[in-house]
Amino acid sequence: MVTIEQLTNFCTSAMSSVGAEQQDAATVADALVMADSWGVFTHGSKLLHDYLLRIQAGGISVKNKPIVDRDGPAWANVQANSVMGHVAGKFAMEVAIEKARQTGVAYVGVQNTNHYGAAGYYAWLAAREGLIGLSMANDIPSVAAPGSRKAVTGSNPLSYGIPCRKDQDPILLDMAISTVAGGKVYAAIQRGESIPDNWIVGPDGLPTTNGSLYPAEASLQPMSGPKGYGIALLVETLSGVLTGAAMTSQVGSWIWGEKSKPTNHGAAFIAIDIQSIMPAGEFERRIGHLVDEIHNSPTAEGVDSVMLPGEREWNHRHQALEKGIELPADVIAKLKNVAELIDEQPVWMTD
Amino acid sequence: MVTIEQLTNFCTSAMSSVGAEQQDAATVADALVMADSWGVFTHGSKLLHDYLLRIQAGGISVKNKPIVDRDGPAWANVQANSVMGHVAGKFAMEVAIEKARQTGVAYVGVQNTNHYGAAGYYAWLAAREGLIGLSMANDIPSVAAPGSRKAVTGSNPLSYGIPCRKDQDPILLDMAISTVAGGKVYAAIQRGESIPDNWIVGPDGLPTTNGSLYPAEASLQPMSGPKGYGIALLVETLSGVLTGAAMTSQVGSWIWGEKSKPTNHGAAFIAIDIQSIMPAGEFERRIGHLVDEIHNSPTAEGVDSVMLPGEREWNHRHQALEKGIELPADVIAKLKNVAELIDEQPVWMTD
Repeated sequence: MVTIEQLTNFCTSAMSSVGAEQQDAATVADALVMADSWGVFTHGSKLLHDYLLRIQAGGISVKNKPIVDRDGPAWANVQANSVMGHVAGKFAMEVAIEKARQTGVAYVGVQNTNHYGAAGYYAWLAAREGLIGLSMANDIPSVAAPGSRKAVTGSNPLSYGIPCRKDQDPILLDMAISTVAGGKVYAAIQRGESIPDNWIVGPDGLPTTNGSLYPAEASLQPMSGPKGYGIALLVETLSGVLTGAAMTSQVGSWIWGEKSKPTNHGAAFIAIDIQSIMPAGEFERRIGHLVDEIHNSPTAEGVDSVMLPGEREWNHRHQALEKGIELPADVIAKLKNVAELIDEQPVWMTD
Repeated sequence: MVTIEQLTNFCTSAMSSVGAEQQDAATVADALVMADSWGVFTHGSKLLHDYLLRIQAGGISVKNKPIVDRDGPAWANVQANSVMGHVAGKFAMEVAIEKARQTGVAYVGVQNTNHYGAAGYYAWLAAREGLIGLSMANDIPSVAAPGSRKAVTGSNPLSYGIPCRKDQDPILLDMAISTVAGGKVYAAIQRGESIPDNWIVGPDGLPTTNGSLYPAEASLQPMSGPKGYGIALLVETLSGVLTGAAMTSQVGSWIWGEKSKPTNHGAAFIAIDIQSIMPAGEFERRIGHLVDEIHNSPTAEGVDSVMLPGEREWNHRHQALEKGIELPADVIAKLKNVAELIDEQPVWMTD
């Protein structure tokens, strides 16, 4: 068990040890630990070790700063200069929030950024400030299109956050456009199970239940076929095509690619300032009504309650704030790698 | 077989016969025939008869005009005053386009509108002008949430259009957030087939393969469960909560509801002005590259080519422009109802 403060301090310290300024180190730590506190361990501090290796090799810069390359009243293009994706993402969403407060809505595209972790973190930054936030990013191809033999788009995450009544957590959706994440395929292989036929396509491009083909000879399937594929292309357009970032097969792999080379990921952020459009109290009342209606709707056989997007994650976070986070073994193992790298192993890690 | 011109003239004439001004009649006709020309017959002229009945009963006004109720630099709220959803939708997207050209991006919400037909029509209006367009709307509950016993959200369509290279049609996605439309369930019942277990939930809220339960004792399932549900709530927020329109169970049914009462549907439109953000030539080159990459990607066993969202529909339209539209029998039957109503049956209808 680790407290949020302990884990945040460790991540901040690790980022500082490779040369990150205090503020950037704190941003990365906050984004990673937020994901862990949501129970989204795939996108939390587990990733830190691989980020550090890439920083040490030069593919990610801790010296550069993201800048607004060009902008207009309700848009901006951010040149991320290969900084950490989390640093560029937070910077870009803050620009979007500032502009949206002036004009009502803003779109900020980012080029030359890196893997930015949990898309939901940035959507939440907006929701925390009372705005509706959207966050999305492209990535290396891992998902087939309907009818393609191989991966055509990235898993292209899409997230939104909607502020609710003061007594309610924001509605927060964070999804990849594949039916399931690759990790679910690995887990099924480990359990020796076959997988549903809408998870991956095999080397012939056709659905297969043989998970062991993945990833060498298989690609993920888009959720609901043409719908997930379609959303992937919207994300690719807003975060890749319209920003000047690398697109699909041009994006570098932040894990398997040459660590000294920038990946040139793209990302996009949209902020909608509710208060510009509707009195905040009226929006709160209306969204509160919707949330209550959903919470009070009759449940299916065996289900306790109908939940909102993000509700499970907020419950996890409330627990984490109170009692700390129980990190899974694979996360602990990766954090131990970090501890070795920076030669500083905190007590909680070996408890 | 009917030409696009013949069908457009008939629809225009029908709208005029119930008192619509020429421009509004032409807008409705264009939207309906566009859907037919795409081969999306569920959202084309087949719907006209039911719209006319609602106009005659007073639930839809052909005398009112949609107006901008309040606005800012990059947003507007449109009071549709119960006009045809197509008229309000076109008006709102044109406001969004105009504002986006000034600021880069604009969001326009609409309240007190009606069923607006094919969401893709409005996205295309923006793409035709060189902008990225998004279009979405709420509707009466028909789709369950994960774990709910009954329908919680509407099928809440979401559409986008992206202009491409001059020799390419726009990328155009138009999707409902349910796994399949209700029409697919009916079709399976008619063929006496059971349905996949991810199409509907039965009266206990659990998945069922018994299509005959729908719609009396069953609800549609959201695509990919929490993902489709999550997108439905984003659409509900932008088109319902933030506009002042009716929300979920408060929305009136435009087909089954009292025809003299407004349905108070909500809709939302977003326009992104590419030329504000990136030189048009550069965007064209980049999106053209993406389109070419997808078209050239290896196909799955037995598949001719990997298609883009909307490509099938554009191919259908090119055929329609050249040779006319072969209307299905159910569409012809509904158009004959219109012909009786307005006492004007064109020759092509009885060919």
